Amino acid sequence: MIVHIKLPNDISYDVIIDKLNLINFDKKAVLVTNCTINSLHLDYIKKYLKIKDLSILTLLDGEEYKSMQTIETILNHCFEHKLNRSSLLIAFGGGVIGDMTGFAASIYQRGIDFIQIPTTLLAQVDASVGGKTGVNNKYGKNLIGAFHQPLAVYIDTFFLSTLPKREFSSGVSEIIKMAVTFDKDFFIWLENNTLDNEENIKYAISKSVQIKASVVNADEKEKGIRAVLNYGHTFAHVIENETNYKTYLHGEAVGIGMLIANEVSIKIGLMNKQEALRVKKLLVSYKIPTSYLIKDSEDFYEHFFLDKKSLDNNIKFILAKGLGNYTISNKIKKEDIISVLKDFS
Amino acid sequence: MIVHIKLPNDISYDVIIDKLNLINFDKKAVLVTNCTINSLHLDYIKKYLKIKDLSILTLLDGEEYKSMQTIETILNHCFEHKLNRSSLLIAFGGGVIGDMTGFAASIYQRGIDFIQIPTTLLAQVDASVGGKTGVNNKYGKNLIGAFHQPLAVYIDTFFLSTLPKREFSSGVSEIIKMAVTFDKDFFIWLENNTLDNEENIKYAISKSVQIKASVVNADEKEKGIRAVLNYGHTFAHVIENETNYKTYLHGEAVGIGMLIANEVSIKIGLMNKQEALRVKKLLVSYKIPTSYLIKDSEDFYEHFFLDKKSLDNNIKFILAKGLGNYTISNKIKKEDIISVLKDFS
Repeated sequence: MIVHIKLPNDISYDVIIDKLNLINFDKKAVLVTNCTINSLHLDYIKKYLKIKDLSILTLLDGEEYKSMQTIETILNHCFEHKLNRSSLLIAFGGGVIGDMTGFAASIYQRGIDFIQIPTTLLAQVDASVGGKTGVNNKYGKNLIGAFHQPLAVYIDTFFLSTLPKREFSSGVSEIIKMAVTFDKDFFIWLENNTLDNEENIKYAISKSVQIKASVVNADEKEKGIRAVLNYGHTFAHVIENETNYKTYLHGEAVGIGMLIANEVSIKIGLMNKQEALRVKKLLVSYKIPTSYLIKDSEDFYEHFFLDKKSLDNNIKFILAKGLGNYTISNKIKKEDIISVLKDFS
Repeated sequence: MIVHIKLPNDISYDVIIDKLNLINFDKKAVLVTNCTINSLHLDYIKKYLKIKDLSILTLLDGEEYKSMQTIETILNHCFEHKLNRSSLLIAFGGGVIGDMTGFAASIYQRGIDFIQIPTTLLAQVDASVGGKTGVNNKYGKNLIGAFHQPLAVYIDTFFLSTLPKREFSSGVSEIIKMAVTFDKDFFIWLENNTLDNEENIKYAISKSVQIKASVVNADEKEKGIRAVLNYGHTFAHVIENETNYKTYLHGEAVGIGMLIANEVSIKIGLMNKQEALRVKKLLVSYKIPTSYLIKDSEDFYEHFFLDKKSLDNNIKFILAKGLGNYTISNKIKKEDIISVLKDFS
């Protein structure tokens, strides 16, 4: 199936969720991938790429390489291969590859086209849609980057066959996030169906992409409603930071973050205990961790202010409102948050 | 006077051509300048800046510092000063400072606002309008960058009082470029008036900015008519390259480039000799060099293909059509170009 993404300013592109078909571009292109994906899937992808003049750049695998230095490696490779303004970059890998390839494309000769072929569930449902690109630096994650939309996104669930189970679950966590904040029917569908066959996985991906597309369409540059996609993330970022990004995968931290957010929702009357329990049950069914030991609640709270999403001293909390709805508020009392955090300590 | 720039996608901003007035922003900001401007004009500018929390970053002066490394210096300074998504960058200097500050603003936390206070004539008439930002690398000039429009541009001719005469003339060259390709009346005005007093300078700046604004408005990302702004530049880039950017200032190379382009115009019947002579006379009156020794015409011609503006093997030439009009053509015969180049050898 095809999800057509329509953004303001006449930008639009297709997300094609299907077995790959011939990807045909009469252009010079560089495909950016990492060594893991290269060894697993390069032969497969090559069968489907019909590119005029293709060069492949294989990077090391890991979030620690998501840096300006690697961006320069990508750019230099493009210059060496004489890519011009009408050339193409192809991101073939998970979120790290997608974010970096998109960022390189956005600044190569002031912006060239790129396409995404995401290979992890997380990248397929989340990173591949929305146009956020960027790298980390010593001050934090994704702090340098650009908004740059792909020309097309090709989602083939074939690649998930080699994805470690924990990484698959990490992607499911973001799918659950979409359902809890935007679509109660989809949440109920997730409760009643398991993501253990291709048909269901494709359905869940397409639902998630559709939800994300409608949000990004309404707010491409995250001035308003797009923040809802960060449900669970405000807490997750602190958890990831406290554990040096080593203990949890991103989706796992988001899972815990959603549970903390839901406790806040219960506290201020946005959600009942039964609803929060259903979210927890669904996460547990995919073996997503649901507990985290907060050592110092005050310290945890202070951490919010370091996040790039907080403007000055105003923290915006994204909270679920029942199942399938949300609230954005910068008026949550500190004592309510601290009280919830203490329950996790 | 104020030139209102209106771009597609609801982007608009003002270019204020006047003695500075209070520039008031209730935001955290970093002002980026270089050591030359710092020592000449920092006291002056400080009188007019009313910023909530201002930090100043002084870079070394020179095109050789227009690099990704300096961009990282700017970004790191912003992180150290905890700029957030609603903060501001201020470019205070010539084209190099403007291009780099704009680029840093475009990728800091995926894009923050910046304002321009250009201090050279070239930056006032050219670099400050259009949103092109970027840096050089070992493969060429401005090869990495972004389109990022400023929030406002403040043009105060006061800064020109300390500008070396050659640099002033280099700016005049770009003004003449605008007149030759777009506005015959303005060209005649330039023939009959000298840019030796504030009133005339302000008029010429405002005319140039208006012309550039209308072109950029029609074609923000240089897919079509915006290329006309590169009249003279295709040749200038080769000249700058052959002389390692050391012999000529940019506007000087553009001056020579326009003369070569005009000879091509004469050759194919777009311009008569009298018109070309009037352009030359005007350039000479500002002591802009008009001769250049081309050592190897074939080599010079081959150089065009290395320029990022040439798509594949198709070179677009921007030529004046009489005075006040232009033609874009990718059908100019190689032998016609070579024949003109030989006249310069």
